[in-house]
Amino acid sequence: MTLFDPPQPLPAAPIGPLVRVRMTVAYDGAGFHGFAAQAAGVPTVAGALAGALERVLRLTGPPAITCAGRTDAGVHAWGQTAHVDLPVGVDVDDLRRRLVKLLAPQIVVRSLDLAPPGWDARRSARSRSYRYMVLNRALPDPFWHGRVWHVEQPLDRRAMELACDPLIGERDFSSFCRRPTGEPAASLTRNVTYAGWVDGGDGIVRFDITATAFCHQMVRSIVGTLVDVGLGRRRAGEMVGILQARDRSAAGSVAPPEGLCLWSVGYPDDLEG
Amino acid sequence: MTLFDPPQPLPAAPIGPLVRVRMTVAYDGAGFHGFAAQAAGVPTVAGALAGALERVLRLTGPPAITCAGRTDAGVHAWGQTAHVDLPVGVDVDDLRRRLVKLLAPQIVVRSLDLAPPGWDARRSARSRSYRYMVLNRALPDPFWHGRVWHVEQPLDRRAMELACDPLIGERDFSSFCRRPTGEPAASLTRNVTYAGWVDGGDGIVRFDITATAFCHQMVRSIVGTLVDVGLGRRRAGEMVGILQARDRSAAGSVAPPEGLCLWSVGYPDDLEG
Repeated sequence: MTLFDPPQPLPAAPIGPLVRVRMTVAYDGAGFHGFAAQAAGVPTVAGALAGALERVLRLTGPPAITCAGRTDAGVHAWGQTAHVDLPVGVDVDDLRRRLVKLLAPQIVVRSLDLAPPGWDARRSARSRSYRYMVLNRALPDPFWHGRVWHVEQPLDRRAMELACDPLIGERDFSSFCRRPTGEPAASLTRNVTYAGWVDGGDGIVRFDITATAFCHQMVRSIVGTLVDVGLGRRRAGEMVGILQARDRSAAGSVAPPEGLCLWSVGYPDDLEG
Repeated sequence: MTLFDPPQPLPAAPIGPLVRVRMTVAYDGAGFHGFAAQAAGVPTVAGALAGALERVLRLTGPPAITCAGRTDAGVHAWGQTAHVDLPVGVDVDDLRRRLVKLLAPQIVVRSLDLAPPGWDARRSARSRSYRYMVLNRALPDPFWHGRVWHVEQPLDRRAMELACDPLIGERDFSSFCRRPTGEPAASLTRNVTYAGWVDGGDGIVRFDITATAFCHQMVRSIVGTLVDVGLGRRRAGEMVGILQARDRSAAGSVAPPEGLCLWSVGYPDDLEG
């Protein structure tokens, strides 16, 4: 229960009119059980942000924070976007500076400003872009540890690139998603507008994917399957059949969280403010 | 007391003839009190390496490890080079694989092979190269944390580059070194063959310096002083006077350890093996 959840009864102390603030947030996911707030004592990014806002603004409770993409435990973000409703008159520049001081180094509030009218971090978002980093060389690297999936055997980059093609377009991603519990009929159709690999040098191979939205564990399941293709365990031509199976067991395993980063969130121009 | 320190009496169990092995080691210095072995219970890179060697090779004690550059607490290395004397017949490829498994992710033994005759990691070294990374932008970055010195105010790169010139050549670096305790007469003259800044993009500014050898805290004192120049607290033209003063109080403060990395060690061609 949080102060600004609309269905909650108003707290005893009057809080006055609210204004919507939007934030772009980068974080190292290693120390967090994901973005979304959980039970007390479970460290989450939203919990840390809400606690810092409560403290800086002397609120009577942690405000509710809505994000564009709920990242899982251990997953990072560079361009997570979120909104929070705060008392009118809040000094956004001062607030951002104080949040940076309180939350760095794990969480950095990169920007914080008043949202345009009608803007909602989740509902207004038109696209999400994720980046997944693989370190593909024989030896691990202490300086990439915690940011990459270390795959020792050489990957066939061309096969992995070919295997991306069938993913692009409006597809049913049932084979690559963990179905939400209690929602057996939920649509798992998503529109992928880009998916491809980039050579980052020094053994780093980077997977970038953009879609209107993603379902749960979709990027990591896709990466796990594409790496299977890169290792020769599956052929690139199998991707079409895996998608058509609409069965989670048809695809590969879920790639580890530490390689994944929510890179950016796209909004329509008229809501850029 | 370690098994292979020459002045020690031989242990009860005969250890037989020894062979010298050289290692290139990368490490994240954050969790270590520097490279050199210290009292039991103090985590050091040499202590971790020696413990792993003792365990893998079932030695009767931790072997002594000699390195080319003793890094301070919190300082990283990409190309630290070290030697250790091990029983003849050691399988170097197998040993390297086991060490990687035991020591990753903080320490990665990048190479391990038999040393050429007469080779000594410290005495044979002809040059050491260090790299210091500054993140020069308003906001910190969760993904560079622990690898860089975050300097918020814009640095004057041209002034910092100019200030490097007087450092190059054979100079007395008394103004930039912590004098070894109990050695008031020790020479602090060193031969710097390269010193310069490189723009790494995205706010990263990198300082590279190569010398035949360095004295204690020399790179970090130089970086602290050059950053003072970049911030306009000192002029580039003051560097000559700072060197000539031969007084530690003439130079700037010591830059934090997390930005520093021992990048590589150079050996004469005839000892490359």
